[in-house]
Amino acid sequence: MSIARVAIVGLGLLGGSIGLAVKARAPQIATTGWDRDASVRERAAARGLVGTVCETAEAAVADADLVILCVPVGAMGDAARAIAPGLKPDAIVSDVGSSKAAVAEALAAALPGATIIPAHPVAGTEQSGPEAGFATLFASRWCIITPPEGADPAAVAALSDFWTALGSKVELMDAAHHDLVLAVTSHIPHLIAYTIVGTASDLEDVTQSEVIKYSAGGFRDFTRIAASDPVMWRDVFLTNKGAVLEMLGRFTEDLTALQRAIRSGDGDTLFDLFTRTRAIRRAVIEQGQDDERPDFGRVHGD
Amino acid sequence: MSIARVAIVGLGLLGGSIGLAVKARAPQIATTGWDRDASVRERAAARGLVGTVCETAEAAVADADLVILCVPVGAMGDAARAIAPGLKPDAIVSDVGSSKAAVAEALAAALPGATIIPAHPVAGTEQSGPEAGFATLFASRWCIITPPEGADPAAVAALSDFWTALGSKVELMDAAHHDLVLAVTSHIPHLIAYTIVGTASDLEDVTQSEVIKYSAGGFRDFTRIAASDPVMWRDVFLTNKGAVLEMLGRFTEDLTALQRAIRSGDGDTLFDLFTRTRAIRRAVIEQGQDDERPDFGRVHGD
Repeated sequence: MSIARVAIVGLGLLGGSIGLAVKARAPQIATTGWDRDASVRERAAARGLVGTVCETAEAAVADADLVILCVPVGAMGDAARAIAPGLKPDAIVSDVGSSKAAVAEALAAALPGATIIPAHPVAGTEQSGPEAGFATLFASRWCIITPPEGADPAAVAALSDFWTALGSKVELMDAAHHDLVLAVTSHIPHLIAYTIVGTASDLEDVTQSEVIKYSAGGFRDFTRIAASDPVMWRDVFLTNKGAVLEMLGRFTEDLTALQRAIRSGDGDTLFDLFTRTRAIRRAVIEQGQDDERPDFGRVHGD
Repeated sequence: MSIARVAIVGLGLLGGSIGLAVKARAPQIATTGWDRDASVRERAAARGLVGTVCETAEAAVADADLVILCVPVGAMGDAARAIAPGLKPDAIVSDVGSSKAAVAEALAAALPGATIIPAHPVAGTEQSGPEAGFATLFASRWCIITPPEGADPAAVAALSDFWTALGSKVELMDAAHHDLVLAVTSHIPHLIAYTIVGTASDLEDVTQSEVIKYSAGGFRDFTRIAASDPVMWRDVFLTNKGAVLEMLGRFTEDLTALQRAIRSGDGDTLFDLFTRTRAIRRAVIEQGQDDERPDFGRVHGD
C-alpha cells in the first residue's frame, strides 16, 4: 500500500506542519487541504501549507490515499461526517488527536466500514492557527499509532512509513494505554499549568502586575503551556476524563504528602524527591526529547 | 556611599553570575570571592568568576564595601558567622535568597549591628555550580530589595545602583510581601513541578521510559524546573513555609474546581479559564519577561 496523496482536514498548527513537512521531506506525495474556516483556508493557501487548498472537505479527500483529521478531538465526528461523501473506499483515515479511545469511537461511528487508524504525534507548541506550523515540528518526536483491533497491517505500516518520512519515531500502542500515558506526560501538566496561572491571576493580595514582573522565578514556564489552544484542551479533558481524573488523583496525593513535609519541616523528604527528579531531566535530554541548553536555550540579556 | 569592592560568598550559579556581570558591566568594581568548598574555589578561579578567589571568608570580605551571600537560604546564618570577623564596620551585607523574612532574621541574629539589606534577583536557570553562571543572567530581570525597618537609605540606594549596573530593574518591597509574591511566582511552580515529575516516575502502569519518550507533550517543561538545585529548594520551602502553604491552599482549591468541571463535563468552565490564561502569557512577553519565540525558542529538528 503506497501513499501518493494526502488530504489534511484542519489547517492549524498540526495540519499546517504536516503539509510543510511533506513538502520538505516527502515531496513525491501530493497534498490537499481543507479547513471549515474560509479565512484559514485563505491564509493556508497564502503560506503554501498544502499543494491545493480545496473549497470543500469532499473535494479535498477525493483521490486521497490518506486523510488526516487535524481538528480538536471534540470536532472529529463532524470532520469525519464532512469527508464521508468524498472518501475513496480504500483510503486510510487517521488523525492527530491527543486522546485516542474517544476519537476511535467517534470516527468508527461516523465512518462505518472505513479504514480507520488513529494516531497522535506528540509534538506541538503553544501557538495555533495556519501561521503557526513549521516543517520540523515532528523531527525526532514520537508519533503514537493506536490501531483498532483487527486493523489492516498494511494500512498501519503505510501510516507508520508516512510519519517516519516526516522525521518522527513511531510506536504502536493500544488506545487505552495511550490515554493513560498521555494523561501524565501531557494532559495533567497542561491542567496544572492552566490552574496555577488562573490562581495567580485571581489573588487579591498579590497584583497581576507583580505576578508578571516576577514570573522569571518559574511561573513564566507555566504561562507558555497555559497559552495553548483553549478549544483543543477543553476537548482533551472532556474526552480523556477517566485517565485524567485517575492521574490527577495520584498527583494530588503526592502533593498532599509534600505539603505535610513542608508543614512539619521534614527537609529530608523534600531533598530526596528533589534529587530524584533531576535524574528524569537528564534522561529526557539524553534521549533527545529536550534542548540541553540551560533554560531551554532562552535568550538572556538585552 | 560608593561601592568599590564587592565580596561574593558562595560561587555557584548566582555568585558566579554576579562576578561575571560585574566584570562585563561594572569593571571599575573589584571583586573577591570565597566558597566553603575547595573544589568550587578552584573551578571559580579557573573560570575567573571574580578578581580574587580567597582561601577564607574572612579574607574575602576584608575591605569589601558590599558582601553578597550567595548560598542556600538555610546556610545564610553560617555564612554570616563565617564573614563576621573580617567585615568592615560600614560594609553592606546583602544576599540573593528566594525567601526574605527568614533570611533577614538569620542575618540580623548572626551579625548584630551590621548594615543588612537583603535582596533577591528573580533570575536563574536549572543549573548550579561554578560552571553555570553567565554575565547576562540578570539583564532585564527584576531584583527585589527588602530593606528592614530603619535601614540606611544611602545603603539601599547603593545596593540598588549596584543591581541596576548589572542590568537589573530594581523594586523595593517589604520582606513579608516579597515572600507571598514569590510563593506564587516561583515557589509553588517549583513545588508542583517537583511533584508531577515524582508522580510520573513512580507509576506502576506507565513506565519511566514512556514518561521520557512522550515528555514533549508538556511534561518536559516541568522536568527542567524539577532539575533545580535540591538544597536550595529544600531550604526555600522550609523558610517560606507560611506563604507557601497559603498559596498551595489556593492552588488546590482551584484544581479541585477544575477536577469537578472535568468530572461533570462542564466544558464552558474549562474553556473560560483556558482563554483567560492566554492573556497572562501575552503580558509576560510584552513586559520582556520571556522569550517571544514559540516553545521558548527551543530547537526543533535534527
